[in-house]
Formats: sequence, structure tokens, C-alpha cells
Amino acid sequence: MFEANLSPAFNITRASHAVLTARDLDRTEAFYCDLIGLIKSDRSRDALYLRGIEERSHHSLVFHRSDAPPACERVGLRMLTDDDLKRAYDYFGSIGCKPKWAELPHQGLTLHVDDAIGTPLEFCATMDDLPSNLQKFELYKGASPMRLDHFQIAAHDVRKATDFYLAMGFRLTEYTATDGKEEIWGSWLQRKGNPHDVVFSSGRGPRLHHFAYSVPEIHDIVHVCDVAGSLGFEQHFERGPGRHGIGNAFFVYFRDPDGHRVELFNAHYQAIDINHTPLRWDLSNTRRSQLWGLPAPARWFYEASEFAGKKVHEPVLKADPVTLETFLGKQF
Amino acid sequence: MFEANLSPAFNITRASHAVLTARDLDRTEAFYCDLIGLIKSDRSRDALYLRGIEERSHHSLVFHRSDAPPACERVGLRMLTDDDLKRAYDYFGSIGCKPKWAELPHQGLTLHVDDAIGTPLEFCATMDDLPSNLQKFELYKGASPMRLDHFQIAAHDVRKATDFYLAMGFRLTEYTATDGKEEIWGSWLQRKGNPHDVVFSSGRGPRLHHFAYSVPEIHDIVHVCDVAGSLGFEQHFERGPGRHGIGNAFFVYFRDPDGHRVELFNAHYQAIDINHTPLRWDLSNTRRSQLWGLPAPARWFYEASEFAGKKVHEPVLKADPVTLETFLGKQF
Amino acid sequence: MFEANLSPAFNITRASHAVLTARDLDRTEAFYCDLIGLIKSDRSRDALYLRGIEERSHHSLVFHRSDAPPACERVGLRMLTDDDLKRAYDYFGSIGCKPKWAELPHQGLTLHVDDAIGTPLEFCATMDDLPSNLQKFELYKGASPMRLDHFQIAAHDVRKATDFYLAMGFRLTEYTATDGKEEIWGSWLQRKGNPHDVVFSSGRGPRLHHFAYSVPEIHDIVHVCDVAGSLGFEQHFERGPGRHGIGNAFFVYFRDPDGHRVELFNAHYQAIDINHTPLRWDLSNTRRSQLWGLPAPARWFYEASEFAGKKVHEPVLKADPVTLETFLGKQF
Amino acid sequence: MFEANLSPAFNITRASHAVLTARDLDRTEAFYCDLIGLIKSDRSRDALYLRGIEERSHHSLVFHRSDAPPACERVGLRMLTDDDLKRAYDYFGSIGCKPKWAELPHQGLTLHVDDAIGTPLEFCATMDDLPSNLQKFELYKGASPMRLDHFQIAAHDVRKATDFYLAMGFRLTEYTATDGKEEIWGSWLQRKGNPHDVVFSSGRGPRLHHFAYSVPEIHDIVHVCDVAGSLGFEQHFERGPGRHGIGNAFFVYFRDPDGHRVELFNAHYQAIDINHTPLRWDLSNTRRSQLWGLPAPARWFYEASEFAGKKVHEPVLKADPVTLETFLGKQF
Repeated sequence: MFEANLSPAFNITRASHAVLTARDLDRTEAFYCDLIGLIKSDRSRDALYLRGIEERSHHSLVFHRSDAPPACERVGLRMLTDDDLKRAYDYFGSIGCKPKWAELPHQGLTLHVDDAIGTPLEFCATMDDLPSNLQKFELYKGASPMRLDHFQIAAHDVRKATDFYLAMGFRLTEYTATDGKEEIWGSWLQRKGNPHDVVFSSGRGPRLHHFAYSVPEIHDIVHVCDVAGSLGFEQHFERGPGRHGIGNAFFVYFRDPDGHRVELFNAHYQAIDINHTPLRWDLSNTRRSQLWGLPAPARWFYEASEFAGKKVHEPVLKADPVTLETFLGKQF
Repeated sequence: MFEANLSPAFNITRASHAVLTARDLDRTEAFYCDLIGLIKSDRSRDALYLRGIEERSHHSLVFHRSDAPPACERVGLRMLTDDDLKRAYDYFGSIGCKPKWAELPHQGLTLHVDDAIGTPLEFCATMDDLPSNLQKFELYKGASPMRLDHFQIAAHDVRKATDFYLAMGFRLTEYTATDGKEEIWGSWLQRKGNPHDVVFSSGRGPRLHHFAYSVPEIHDIVHVCDVAGSLGFEQHFERGPGRHGIGNAFFVYFRDPDGHRVELFNAHYQAIDINHTPLRWDLSNTRRSQLWGLPAPARWFYEASEFAGKKVHEPVLKADPVTLETFLGKQF
Repeated sequence: MFEANLSPAFNITRASHAVLTARDLDRTEAFYCDLIGLIKSDRSRDALYLRGIEERSHHSLVFHRSDAPPACERVGLRMLTDDDLKRAYDYFGSIGCKPKWAELPHQGLTLHVDDAIGTPLEFCATMDDLPSNLQKFELYKGASPMRLDHFQIAAHDVRKATDFYLAMGFRLTEYTATDGKEEIWGSWLQRKGNPHDVVFSSGRGPRLHHFAYSVPEIHDIVHVCDVAGSLGFEQHFERGPGRHGIGNAFFVYFRDPDGHRVELFNAHYQAIDINHTPLRWDLSNTRRSQLWGLPAPARWFYEASEFAGKKVHEPVLKADPVTLETFLGKQF
Repeated sequence: MFEANLSPAFNITRASHAVLTARDLDRTEAFYCDLIGLIKSDRSRDALYLRGIEERSHHSLVFHRSDAPPACERVGLRMLTDDDLKRAYDYFGSIGCKPKWAELPHQGLTLHVDDAIGTPLEFCATMDDLPSNLQKFELYKGASPMRLDHFQIAAHDVRKATDFYLAMGFRLTEYTATDGKEEIWGSWLQRKGNPHDVVFSSGRGPRLHHFAYSVPEIHDIVHVCDVAGSLGFEQHFERGPGRHGIGNAFFVYFRDPDGHRVELFNAHYQAIDINHTPLRWDLSNTRRSQLWGLPAPARWFYEASEFAGKKVHEPVLKADPVTLETFLGKQF
């Protein structure tokens, strides 16, 4: 049912970067550098490039200044080599996806294509190489975010999206499904050998639900919350800290000044072996979303960043999550 | 306004122990030993004695089996010597408090008296001496609770309670008051040189809101939540993890099988110097309750353990806290 | 100079397991389960199988009871599928390595072969699938070791060993070399996208220097030291805690009851991108071994587990490391 | 044998501050502020005042610029009130100690006196009150030192020193003694209810062995080591990280640019109760100095800061500690 393609024609290696719009780059820089602790790689009047503390690639987060409503422009994935990109170009063409080459600053050969549900993807194999700050420990601050880890995308058709990524060689680590049926409500897909590079969850889509940075320790998750409190960013706090059942992440979620959602987490596991079969979670099992503590507020479930210029569709499967609001009303 | 008595006739040294009732001691032992990580000092058919990992005194928590509705029997405070107890006996008699001597297992000379708002107190100077487990690191589990730190008591008259404790030599570290007035809504009082041994907050009282154990690290607060999730105690989870503004505690609150509330926290500060003047928080300032994150659910504010045989009074000052429920309804 | 083979004929995915001998399995089990915190998967009179807390594969550590001097029998590597094993069989045969198929309990199809310097390797693609204990948080103890991460092998000819692994598709992340020359003294090689699956360092070889488990946090490294102190294993302590320059591991090293060396560490980085060029460290730069603190004692540099039945050769390059003993004599 | 005076004529509350000389205040400030993470309260051409992150008192560390060989000028202790100071003045006069009043910037009424072994003490009850930075989490860096905790003084006559402090109301928590005898080699003495405010250990004295700051977590001890490595302070590293048996501190020791020694530690316990009898450690028990890991280097045992203008005496009891050097020579 979730057959991985073990011999894809091209080698996607990992979640790479997100390209977003922001209305005020100063405010965006303050949020991501002063609070979250990302490193600024470059800043111009109209663009801000950020990377995690250990990252040597030029950017894992790009903001373009725009007065339009905030949006996500592209979800970036890395391939191993330029040859992979070329084979991917042929592949996407062959299945009717209309790939296009793009020229972008600080990146090598870059391919643009939409996935099966309309998510605008951007693939590249190389970026400008910058020094890692991994051993500049005096720069660790906020959450000390090490590297971009994954994206979660609200998908109107999770099954269709999942099949598209399985065909590209992604492997499924965990999934949620309607109790007693194989109706897929969410899928956790990976290429780099940990729980996920890309996650799809049912909802109005395609929209970017969040991007996530891996941080060293529980301590760092709590410290960034404390710093949010002391620097006056507490309104940006949305959910957590808590422990996801799926993926085992100890997490916190913030909303940036434009409403884009960022997760900071640690404690993923390794998922490499062929006999590491997908773990199923029934939709009725609320432990998938948190092993303890209160449910997420409704806005965590329903709000997400639209993709610039992309139509948003109603979901095929209507999920009815247990939100904090419904939980308090009904059970507590 | 909060003049400390720097020369009290007797030397109260610290919050010492709580005496509570439980309907099923097996269930209580499982909760406190398997989940929270307390050490069992003694267990009979009708009594369970627990202590923190570093504690050498016989108990900081006593449960008496009872089929009656769960209640707190006594809040225990330590004095330095038996001579202090004798001087305290005279003092309490002189102000009309009707002190009584009590004989109890595992404790030395013990004095019973009610405070100004009816809280049943128990004072002693010595207990049976047991080995500390501080350096038996293999016993650290759950939250690795080191020692009992403080009590919070819901008080129908916070001003009256506060004055009673100030007269006994307690010093005020922080307090909440109606904006623009000196109407005291909550008081944080200490003898041992950190933020609090006893806290009073306005509400139906007297009732025991919670007792709190100090834990080593943030890690331990999160670990006990994780263990609660894996051992099936997630329904006992009530609030947190979060950071209190007052006292700076990084906290989590659980409810035990009888509904008694236990706080696990770290990161208090030292409060010894005479010029360490009380820190005032306006009632309108929600940062006093949490520096970031969502407010506590209503039950955290309104539910507490009654004292056995003690009448509960309506509060003089009616607080109207921002609960999670009102917050979600109004603001989020 | 360190050209990776980006299209190897077979897909090695990761360091998988070590097979060692022990004289007393009770003592070995006590060391690895009670102190280190590994999970016992199986135990018979003559064999002990262990795995990390998150591991679903049956074992990452196997001990065979033996009265012979303690030795390492095999270093285990995983391939993706059985087809990879078959292609590897052909490859090893074609280069004169004399591969052999083996039948072993709890593993699928298994291939035995010696590498270029005589290290006895064992490849498989599947093992018996057991439950992960990742979310059984009450089982976390000692160092809470999550998964086997890598091996370090003392090699008499590091260059020859490195070339052999590069040819199999391993990629070099870091290396040490004589100042001003390209004489390779140590090589850090990976398949799974982090700093290393296999490390070669110059010395009498081949011998197994250590195997390493990844742990969640700094806290866990210190806790296992504390537990070693309280359970009476302090004589097994060898080096650390400290921070390696190479690979950035925060580490501690123990010797097990038979003298086999185990590293517990955290804080590796991700190494996936093609432009992640190898990081060179001059042999004279002692920061490669520790960023701060005292050097390792001589025994850490010179002692290692021999491979059963394998001849040990003198190293081609004689390293003269700064040991704790020479450091104290000369500089401090 | 170690009878505490439970009714001292004056109330010493805690270790307060150290006054030291430094040859280059820029270098000293860089060490303590950039690396260790102390907060600068004031700086003039000839004086530097520092405090811990939570401290509201103006300073816990004072450096006077001097071209003379680096020395400690005063060890500072706090009393509760100025009345205590006045009673102490009379007391010291009555026992022939020649107390003197001093006027110092940023401190209230100040009393100077030498203790029984010649340590120059400075007592005050108040200092200028500055804001605590406890909840300015963005200022946490290096070791995030919260507050000064204690001093260790090399004493030529530990028994004489101990008796002097017992008479002032200090209580003994732990001590080292020659095996089978009551010859005291070291004494851990406290007023504030944790393991120690002042420690005496046998050696050429009086000299200041170290002063110690309390830090929040194990994480912070390791982080300051990492930052020392990345900022180029690794030569200032002296001992640790490790766990003391006595006091249970998880510690690291640095030497500042003038050779003064600072300890950063966490995980002390509470010591308040009258039945908390002193814990004896035999001199032959090396676990008192570290529960695991290697012994301290000889310089940790033998080097200390002289007190300005004070004669250094040979110790009455000649200790012969197991140093790292003797340990490596003999046992490892």
C-alpha cells in the first residue's frame, strides 16, 4: 500500500530550504536571529537569507520582501548532484509536470516544478558553501537551531500527494488513517533517514503548515520560550512545549511576524532499514499529536501559509481534530 | 506594609511535610514512586511515608488511608530545635491559637496549631534520620524530586494570613495586588532563603492548592511528563510545562489519584539579603502566572484540597483570573 | 584525492552491529544493561544480544561467551536490500576478497568478508524486527543509548583502508594528515549522512578501537558517569567527558569488563550535501581530539580489541600523540 | 566535636563577595563577562565590579587593578542587619581580633577583621540594589552563573579555622579526617542552608583556593567549556567537568588571567535541619574529591591566591593528595 520506490531515477537527499515572503525584513530578522537564533548569511533591501548554526549551505530560509499578503513561494528539496536534477527534469516532463530551470542567487542549477497537489517545489544540488558555526559555541542562542529538518504541508488530497512522493523514492515512516480503514489522513515521508523530510496532513491545501529546525536539547526548546518571554515575543508563541507521539519530537511552535509557523524540536529517531515498516496511528488516537499535555489550539490545526498564486482546495477527507477549544468544552 | 519580624521568638526553618488522605495507597504509591520518583520510607496498611531523593528526614509526604473524601490533614513546618517549639507553644497560646502537643511516629516533639485563617499546621524540629539517596544516581527517575520546597494555600483572607506569617518571622519575596491599590491578592513568604516556603493566594479557603518538590533540571520536568505519557498517567497532567513569572519556577503540575495537586519545578533564586525588597506584580499582569505560553485551565485556579474538618470560606477579594478557557474565548 | 564513488554497485546504509567475545556474560550484561542502559533482546548460555532504546532491529551488539582472550569477531554493516548483498558478493569476489555467505540467528542473508586491512566485516540487510522502546520513557536509564552510530578501527594502513571504503561509496567528512603533507593519519567515513559510520586511525591494526552509541543529551553523558560512580563501575571510566574537535561529539569513553571500549556521545552534525567537502585537521592540532580539557591517557591511544584470529601489523605511519602523560610531563 | 553555636550574637547569612587584584582589567572583564557570563555592574579605571545573573546586590566579585603580584584582598561575608555588624564588632574586639570599620563604595556599613588563621574578612549587611537579570534570559551566556555560593581557603590549621567559624554560628556539613583519627583535614561550613559558604582544606595558608558560582544546569557547565574552546580560553581550563563526592557538586574549574581560580557548579543539596549531622570522609577515600573520572592535577591541589600582605604558613597537617600525576604514575 505504501510501496517505496527503491530505485528512483534521481536522488533527492533531504528537505533543503523554504522561500517565503515578509512585509518587513527588519522585523523578520529580529524574530529569526535575535529570538530563534538563526545565522544571517546575507541581507539586501529585498531579500534575507538565513541558515542554521551547523549549516554550511548558504541558506535554509529565504525571505523576499513583499507588500502582498504573506505567502510561501517555494519548498526547497536537495538532490545529490546536478545529474540527478537533469534526470528529474526528464522524469517530471514525462509525467506531465512541466518542470522549468531557474537561475537563483547563491544556488547552483535549480529546477522548479509543482507536485501532484500543487505545492511549488524547488530542487537544487549545490549552494554557496559558507563556514559552519557548529564550533562557534558563543553564537548559540535562542533555540540554537542547528539545521532545517522538514516541512509539513496541508494537503487537500493526502493520498495523491503521498503517492507522488513515494514514486520519487520517499519512504513512509508513520501515517494516520481513519479507524478501521486505509483512508490516509496524514503521511510522514523521508529521504534522509530520520522520521520525515516532508509531511502531508489533510486540510485546505496546498498550504505550508510549518517548517522545522532541529535543535540540540530539551534545554534549547525551553530557553527559546524564556527568551520569547523576556524579549517581548510571547505573542508569537503558539503551541507547546510538548511531545508528539508521531516522530517523537519534543516541540514548540512559534508564528513569525507574518504568521508563518516555525517548529523547533529535538529527539527524532533514525529510520533507514528496509524492515522499518510504517507505523500506523488511528485518527481517534490523540496520542499521535501529543503524548501528554493539552491539545493544540484550533488555529494550529486550521491556519497555514498559502503558496503564492496557488489555489487552495477543500480537503477530500474532512478531519475533525480534537482542538484545545473542543477539549476544554467537552472533557476537562 | 510588609514589615518582617527579624527577631521572632522561635526559629521556623522551612516547609517540611504535608499530611494527606488517600483512598487507595497502592495507587498513591504507584503515582508518587513510579511516576514522580519519590522514595518510599515506610508503608503500613494505613500509612505511606515518602521523601525526596536527597532528603535525610524520614518523610516530606504522608498519606493516611481513608474512605472519606480526600483531604489534607496538616501542613508541616520545621523549627530549628525543640526549644523553638516550646517558645512557639507559648507564643501561640498568648495570641489565643490553642496549640497542642502531638505524638507522631517518626517525628520528634510535635506541635499542632491552626493559623489565622484556619490552616491546620504541624511543627516539629526533628525526624528519624534516613540515608540520603543524593549519590545513588541509579535511583533517579521520573522527575528526580530532590526535596519538598513549599506549599500554596488558597486563602479567603490573604492579608490576614500574610500578617500572621510575617509576625512569625517569614519574609515576603513577591506579592500580587490589585492595580493601583494595596489590596493583596497573593503573597510569597519564605524562611529558608529562597522565594517561598508558603504561598497564599486568594480563593475559597483555607484549602491546600499544591505542594511542590524541587527537581534538578528542566530535563527532569520534561522527563516526568514523558514517563506520564508512557506509563498511562497522562490524565493526571494538569498544567505546563511553563515558566512562572513570580518565583521564576519552570514548572509542571500533576493531580494525584485523589486529586491532590503536586508541582515539580526548578530554577528558584536566593532571597536572603535584608535589602531584597518584595517584588510587586499587578493583578492585571498575566506574566506573573506564566512568562510565555497559554494560561492555566480554570480547574488549576479553582480546585484545591480541603483541610479535613475545616470550614471553607468565600474569599474576601474575588479574583477573576484569566483562565485558559476565558483566554481562548476572548483573545486567541 | 578522496573521490567518493557516487554510484556504488551496492547500497551500504549504515554501521549496524558489533560481534565481540566476553568471558562472563552476567558481568557483561550488568555493565551494558544496568550501567549503560542498553536493552536486552535475547540471552542464552553462550550469547547475549543487545540493542539501543530506539532500535527496532534485533541487535546492535552481540557477545559470545569465550574463555579465550577477549576479541572482536566482526564489525557489522547494513545494506539496504538483499539484492545489494548479492551485488556486493560479486564485487568482493571480483577484487579478490573471498566473500562468504553466513547463516546467523536473528539476521537475514549475511555476507562475510575482510576489508583491505583485514577487518572482518559482516553485512546484512535485515534483522528480526522488535519493538522500539523510544516512547517507553520509563526504560531510559544510564546513558539512555539510542542507537549504534559508528566504529573506530585502529589501522596499520589508513590510506589503504580509506580507499577501500571510498570505493564502496563511503564519503569522507573529516581527516587528519601530517602537517604540510597529504599523509593521512585518520579518516572519518560515512554512509548515513552524519560524520561517520567507520573511522580509521593510524596504529597497530587492524584492531577495534571502539564502537559508539548516540545518546540524547549532555545530561545523559554526565548521568552515566554518575551512575558508574554509584554502582561501583568507576574503574571502567576511561576518558572524558569532553568535546572532540573532529565530529563535534560530546563524549565519554568506558571500558567494559573485557576491556572493549564503548563511546557514548551526542551532538553530531548532518553531512549529506555533495559540496560538503572533507575538513582537514593537521596532526599537530590537538584541538581535533579535544576542544578543551586534558588529553586522553596513553591507554586510550594505544589499547584496542584485537580481531579474533587476525594478525596485528605495525602501522605504516607512526603517530606520536600528545597523551595525558606526556602533556603533564611537558607542559602543565 | 563540631558543636555548632545555635545562638550566635550576630547573624552571618552567607558568602557574599571576593575582592581580588588584577593586572589588566580589560582582560579580566573579557574572561568573566564574555566567557563565564557574569554581569558588569560598574567599571572605572581601577576597579571592576561584577555580579551573577540573578544577583540584586551590586557586586559579588571586585577587581582592583594592580601591578603587584595577583592577590586576594578580602573574602566578603554578609550579615543580616547593621545591628549584627555592631554586635560582631564587639565580639571580635572581645576575643582580640582588632575589628575595624571601613567605608567602601556601593556597600553599606562594612567591618574588616582577620579570622583565626589570618584570612582578611569583610562583613557588610547591605549593598546598592541593582535589578536582577534572572528573567532577562537573552543575557544568559557562558556558564550563566546565577550567584556567588562559597569560598575555599587553603588553611595551615584547619582545626583552628573550623573552631573559629563554628563559634560564629557556622554549621559543619561534611569533613575529611585522617583514617581512624579525628585529625581534620578539611571542613565544609555553612550559614545559608546548603553544603557550604566557606571551606577550609589543609595546605600552605591562608590562601584563597577558589570562589564558586552556582549555575542552573549541567548543560551550562559543559557550555562554558565549549565556549572556552571556541573563544580561545582553553588554556584557562584546569579541572573537570566532574562530580565531587563532598557536596555533590558537578563542577568545572578555570583559572582567570591572573591565576585566580573560579569554580562553576550545580547540584548542591539543602542542609538546614538540626539532625543533619556532619558527613565524615576518610582521607584515603578518593571518592570525596571525585565520584568518577581522573584526579585533579597537582596544581589544583597546590596553587592558590595569596592574601595581600599576609604571611603564608606551612600546614600543620601535611596532606599528600592523589594527584593526576601520581595517579598516572602509579595506577593507571
